[in-house]
Formats: sequence, structure tokens, C-alpha cells
Amino acid sequence: MVMLAEKLRKIYENSGADALYIECDFLRRYLTDFYSTDGYVVLDDTGCKFVADPRYFEAAEKRLKGTAVEVVAGAYPQAMELIAGKKTLGIPFPFTDAASYERLKKSFTLTDCMPALKEAMLYKSEEELGRIQRACDIAEEAFLDLLPALKEGMTESDAAALLEYNMRKRGASGTSFETICAFGAHGSVPHYETGNAKLRFGDPVLIDFGCKVDGYCSDITRTFLFGDDNSHGDFKNIYNVVLEAHRLVKEKLVAGMTGKEGDAIARDHLKEHGLDKYFTHSLGHGIGLQIHEYPLLSPRAEQKLDDGMVFSDEPGVYIAGVLGIRIEDSMYMKNGKTHSFMSKTQKNLLVL
Amino acid sequence: MVMLAEKLRKIYENSGADALYIECDFLRRYLTDFYSTDGYVVLDDTGCKFVADPRYFEAAEKRLKGTAVEVVAGAYPQAMELIAGKKTLGIPFPFTDAASYERLKKSFTLTDCMPALKEAMLYKSEEELGRIQRACDIAEEAFLDLLPALKEGMTESDAAALLEYNMRKRGASGTSFETICAFGAHGSVPHYETGNAKLRFGDPVLIDFGCKVDGYCSDITRTFLFGDDNSHGDFKNIYNVVLEAHRLVKEKLVAGMTGKEGDAIARDHLKEHGLDKYFTHSLGHGIGLQIHEYPLLSPRAEQKLDDGMVFSDEPGVYIAGVLGIRIEDSMYMKNGKTHSFMSKTQKNLLVL
Repeated sequence: MVMLAEKLRKIYENSGADALYIECDFLRRYLTDFYSTDGYVVLDDTGCKFVADPRYFEAAEKRLKGTAVEVVAGAYPQAMELIAGKKTLGIPFPFTDAASYERLKKSFTLTDCMPALKEAMLYKSEEELGRIQRACDIAEEAFLDLLPALKEGMTESDAAALLEYNMRKRGASGTSFETICAFGAHGSVPHYETGNAKLRFGDPVLIDFGCKVDGYCSDITRTFLFGDDNSHGDFKNIYNVVLEAHRLVKEKLVAGMTGKEGDAIARDHLKEHGLDKYFTHSLGHGIGLQIHEYPLLSPRAEQKLDDGMVFSDEPGVYIAGVLGIRIEDSMYMKNGKTHSFMSKTQKNLLVL
Repeated sequence: MVMLAEKLRKIYENSGADALYIECDFLRRYLTDFYSTDGYVVLDDTGCKFVADPRYFEAAEKRLKGTAVEVVAGAYPQAMELIAGKKTLGIPFPFTDAASYERLKKSFTLTDCMPALKEAMLYKSEEELGRIQRACDIAEEAFLDLLPALKEGMTESDAAALLEYNMRKRGASGTSFETICAFGAHGSVPHYETGNAKLRFGDPVLIDFGCKVDGYCSDITRTFLFGDDNSHGDFKNIYNVVLEAHRLVKEKLVAGMTGKEGDAIARDHLKEHGLDKYFTHSLGHGIGLQIHEYPLLSPRAEQKLDDGMVFSDEPGVYIAGVLGIRIEDSMYMKNGKTHSFMSKTQKNLLVL
């Protein structure tokens, strides 16, 4: 409880605004720790108020009693009353639409409060880490449930559906993004749209997936062989290089290094094997209430990594029409070192 | 193909801008009919260009060959080149964030192209209607698959997971929104968050769900009894009033009536039975690539309904802590009349 109050005060102070005004779903959830699809949050020197309409008021009152968040019955007009007379209003520019921006600009000096929110969201609390851990556990367990159910002739969509069901059944509220399930050479399209290709003996399988628990996301990719038809010599060699790139990040990435340095750990290893030109995306992204958050681990990321941060470690090699290999864990930093949330699924090449 | 070209030209002309510039996912999909999670669309007097990065370029080229959409390799800088020198730039204000808005404002006179897009999106093509029909068919079939699997002791999350799996297995790419599954009096919270309540004999069950097919959504709600413990006299009476309100909309709502008049058909019927004060939301919303679109059917909706429009018909009665009943179909207007996409599931009170 105290932690929420402190977090809120810090965000307010860092924003430099007279009040923060939030309409966006996931930020409303972040600031109140209450799930809703509508409502307004106002944060000022008197504290944090959540304006909830009849759909949410009762449940919000019950849940937020005794916390740093006060629930106010109402909707847009009540939210406007709460900010009336303020001079500088902090709104999250990347999550405020241009129409709201134009409207609010008539009454306030607008400032972007997203830097203050981003700064707070970079550092996950123990409770947030616990939720991400559960989302990771469920994803891994669901994957292990899937493996024995994979059969020749099954489509990519069938496999994705079953995996998602396994996650949901184990307690996830849903997926954290659209499951990517690619059979054969389809894996060479990094953002492949899961389709109706049928699983054949000897196919490489790439599955990139994740789920949500209490709003928080997991993100994991596994690439494996559905049987070995002895045509996968290159595949196996490249797999081991990608796996080593993935592993080196966990070993070498320590607090104080930048996202750029983190990305370079994997990219340099791929380069030593002449594979860096096939690594066409960045190494990782932050994970939290959103599947893509900060910090970034990319060739241009100057942000330093620190304890409490959560991010993906996902090197990949994509040779168009030939093969695609990606290995990804959700990771966190603690006591200056990088740890994986994942421990249940193997990363040495799995051959079913 | 011709239809896409005509649609694009009409949107461009209605926007009044020198060029339209689109970053947002679902609008990019609407304008190109190609699924991507990144990219830019520029629409001007020379036609429609989709700027795709290496993740999507190859697939987009293949898919869009011969259509009115030209695929351009690149990312943000290439999109900026395409609009360089334009005076008035149309961007969708509700789907443009304040940061992009501020940035673009430095180089262009900005105008909101959302009215032109909304106008086009109101009228679904035969192909769009076909996709929504498939999304509705799958939702209904998945519901029928679920019914025999409901067992005492099952949680709300279990039931939602199984329903979602059934939809996915039948070919949906995912849910169109977070499934609401409420047992017992939980149904009285219109936007209830599916939880861990266990199903007991005699429970009313409210399930509001839908799926996506080729990007298009379905939306359906069914309320039924899991066994009859003879405690549901009021429930049954109210159910029949809600059902009649739902039915009357299909019968009486014709082209040329406003959303307000449509809403009143259901609301007036509930009023005759003294139940209108428990109908705490509006009657319906448009459905398409997004689960909430135009037209609206609400006490304030002045838009006239017309052929090609798709919307929900979802009257409900919510008595806090006591009961919640909602009956919803996805509907469309054709030849001046209102038709339902749903035909496979019963709406007379189902008692399992």
C-alpha cells in the first residue's frame, strides 16, 4: 500500500505538471492496479483519484479501499471537474489521441507525462515480478502440454489454438500478443501470420507466444524439429550459434551496461559466425503490462540496464524461404545480474 | 479490385487533404486489406502506397500485386519522403498519438481524416459481411460445443478458456475482446472480469464473447440457466422481457431510422415493464475490424441507419448483486431491414 502511494507521488513529482490526467487503459491499470475498460485517473498534489462509472464503481470501491487511490463516481464531466483550474496538465502523449490533445489544449498547458511514467514502469516491484513469473510459468507449462499433442497433419492454427487453450486453462486471462506458429520455412518470416500449413515429419517449428496474468505479459520463443529427416545439418549448426548468442546475454549482461551493449553481446557472436546479416531485428524489448515496453536492447539503445528491469533476450537468424530460428526467454535483472524467468523448457535443440 | 480502388479514391476525396498518412494498425489493414503490425500507408492523388519493412515487404508484394495498393520498401523515412511537400495532411486524430501529432504539425497543416474513413467503414462490402458472418458462425458453433462440456465445479475461466479454444480450433485467429463469463449474480456487472467462481446447479450463466476472422469481429451474448432449482421465477420473467426487447429491434428497426430511435425500441419495451432503469448501457455499437465502431445505437445517436451497416443489438437488465441478463446478436441491415448474423443458437431461455 505504502509502495503504491510512493510510486504515485514520485510519478507526480517527476512529471512537473500540476496534475496528471489519464484516459488510457493500461496506464489507468498501472496507476490504480484495478482492471477496467473505461474511466479516468487524476493525479495531483492531493493524491490519486479514479473516476469510475456505474459499471466499475462498486467493484473499484471494494478493491481500492485503504489504498492510495480514491474512487470517485462519475465519468468524463467528473474527471474534467477534478482538473478544472489546473495550469499545466500532464498527459501521456504517445497514448493520447490527437482529438483529445486538441480539446485539452484549449484549457491547459499540456506536457508529456510519459517520461515520468516510463521511468516508474522500468522498475518492476516484487509484486509485478511475481505476476510476470506466473505468466512465464504458465507459458512454459502450456508449451510442455502442447508437445505430446503435436501430430502430423495438424495445422499451425490448430497448434496455436491448443497452446493458447493450455495457457488459458492454467489461469492466464489471455494471450499477450497474437501467437506466431510457423512450420517449415515459414519461420523465416519474423512476424509470420499463423496459417493453415500442415505439420510434416522433419519440419522445423517456431512458436513465439505468451500470456497475461493479472495484466502482466510473458514472451517466449522456442524453435525445434518435428522429427529429424537428416536434412537439417545447417539448421543444427545455426541453431547452436543462436543459442550461444542467447546464452551469452544472460552470462555477460550486467547492470550499468546499455541496451546497445546488451544487443551487441548477441550480435557480435552471430557476426563471428557470419550470421549477423540475418539477424534483422533488435535483441529485446521491455515487458510488463504491455508486451513492448522499455528498456530496449537494440543497436541504438543508450538506456542503462538496472535491477528491477524486465526484458526479452531473443536473437534470431532468418534466411528467407530457407529457415528461421529464434530463441527467446523473458529475463529480469537482479543484484546486478541477468536472470531468466524460464526454467521449465529446454533450449538445447529439441527433436520430437 | 476495382472496389478497393473506388473505396480508396472516395476516402481521399472526402478527406479534403492533399494526402492521407496512416500509421495505425487496423486502418492500415482496412486500406490495404493486408495484415501487418507495422508500416505506413500514404494515400494521395497518385494512389495508395503501403510502406513495408523487410518483415512484411515480400509477403505484401505477393499479396497486393494487381490491386490498387502499391508496395514500397522502407520504413518511416520512406513514408516521410512520400508526403514531403504536401500542404494539408490528413491523419486519423483519434488514432494518432499526441507525439506524432506535434511532430507532423511542424511540417503540415493537419486535418482529421477519420470522418472520411468512418464514413467508408460504416458500409461493409459483401466480402466484409462474409468475414463477419464467418466470425459469427464460428462463435455460435463454439458456444454449442461448449454447452455439453459445462460441469458443476468448473470455473468461469475454465469455461471461457474452452469457448475460446473452440473458436480458435474452428478457424478464428483469436477473440474479438476479452471473454466475459459470469456465473450466478456476477452477471449483474455488465463488464465483469471473468474469474474463479465455480459453477453450481441452478446458476444463471452470462457469456459475452466473440472472435476474429480475417481481422473482422463477431459479438454475441447468451444468458441461460445451468439447471433450474425453482428459484428463478423473476429471472424468467425478466428474461422474456429482455428477449422481446431484443426481438423488437430486429422487427422494427428499418433503414432511415436513427441510432436513437433504434435504442428506443428496446428501451421503451423495458420501460413498459418498469425495467428501463436497469438497462444501464446503450443498445448497440457498430462492428467491423474493431469491436466498437459506428453506427451507435444509443439515446444520443443521431446517425441514420442504412444498408450495409453492422451493429450489435444487446439489451440488458442488471440488478446489482441479484441478476444480470443480456441477449445480444450481431446484426446487419439489408434491403432496408435488420437481419441477424446469428441463427444456430437458441434465444428462448435455455435450461441445461
